[in-house]
Amino acid sequence: MALKIYLAGPDVFLADARRVGQQKQQMCRELGFEGLFPLDNDAAVGADAASIFRANCSLMRQADIGSFNLTPFRGPSADAGTVFELGFLFARGKPLYGYTSAVKSYRERLAAAGELHVDPNGQPYDRGGYAVEHFGLSDNLMIVRAIEDSGGVITAVEEKTGEASTSLAAFQAFKACLKIISERIKPADVRRA
Amino acid sequence: MALKIYLAGPDVFLADARRVGQQKQQMCRELGFEGLFPLDNDAAVGADAASIFRANCSLMRQADIGSFNLTPFRGPSADAGTVFELGFLFARGKPLYGYTSAVKSYRERLAAAGELHVDPNGQPYDRGGYAVEHFGLSDNLMIVRAIEDSGGVITAVEEKTGEASTSLAAFQAFKACLKIISERIKPADVRRA
Repeated sequence: MALKIYLAGPDVFLADARRVGQQKQQMCRELGFEGLFPLDNDAAVGADAASIFRANCSLMRQADIGSFNLTPFRGPSADAGTVFELGFLFARGKPLYGYTSAVKSYRERLAAAGELHVDPNGQPYDRGGYAVEHFGLSDNLMIVRAIEDSGGVITAVEEKTGEASTSLAAFQAFKACLKIISERIKPADVRRA
Repeated sequence: MALKIYLAGPDVFLADARRVGQQKQQMCRELGFEGLFPLDNDAAVGADAASIFRANCSLMRQADIGSFNLTPFRGPSADAGTVFELGFLFARGKPLYGYTSAVKSYRERLAAAGELHVDPNGQPYDRGGYAVEHFGLSDNLMIVRAIEDSGGVITAVEEKTGEASTSLAAFQAFKACLKIISERIKPADVRRA
């Protein structure tokens, strides 16, 4: 039986989510994995939030590996639903892999958005007075460290401005991520929960 | 032995994080709980991301209950680190409680920020072409449903404009949240992992 990769990301919010999901699942199949694609607001799992939540949790419980589209979503961090799922699968001890179309660090992205201020001691803060982590990571340390501690990596392919909303860069980063997973994880490496 | 509440939130990024943490821990003690306050970039746990991550995971593994400051952080959703911890503690089957200083729904907040567009079928989208959930929830459905499925609730106290960055409203919402926890959870209700 093929190992199952949970395909987390804000892709579920795309108008053509189902097609994007099938495309990613096909890429998984070509490398001998089964891709589990979550759904949001899809007729197949029912129209209410509770049904969608339970369907996604049920899929996550079947997963052997997690893959996460960490491309910044409506702010400097990854999509909140995706990050929730990262915490869930980390707690279950699964190997986790991330990919993103942002190659800059979190701090660089805040600075580029004009949201970074520096106090007299050189400590960076945002306009709300909250410190900005100075570890040079691509997102909040809990996200990046969880992936690294689980044995995974984050791949990044830079987004070119003017690209379509269905990010080609994130797709290429996913492909690179999947390649690393297939090189590293063989069926015997993963114990089922 | 007192039940332990993990105190998740972007409070860790405040300049006076340690004081805020002690204040919340004192509020827990007054109701017979022990508050576990995570740290970020604090000398006590070491200066590197890996040490902070492991210290926080170790605290979470001790927790019987999770409380989460879901006040929108650098965007329409809760702080990414906080959401990671929500997923982690949900996977561990703990009762989870949220609090926020935002009383509007996620969709209303996006609309207020001029980030909501509606297609001819009435379906709301953001400018990147990603659908906006229409469930009327305060944040991404994975966050809200995890709390409700775990048996918890989210308390909200409205932020008044012009308030200091150490949100008084979020503090009052935390107090209300803690009161509900103390009314609902007695030592016999929680089994230790």
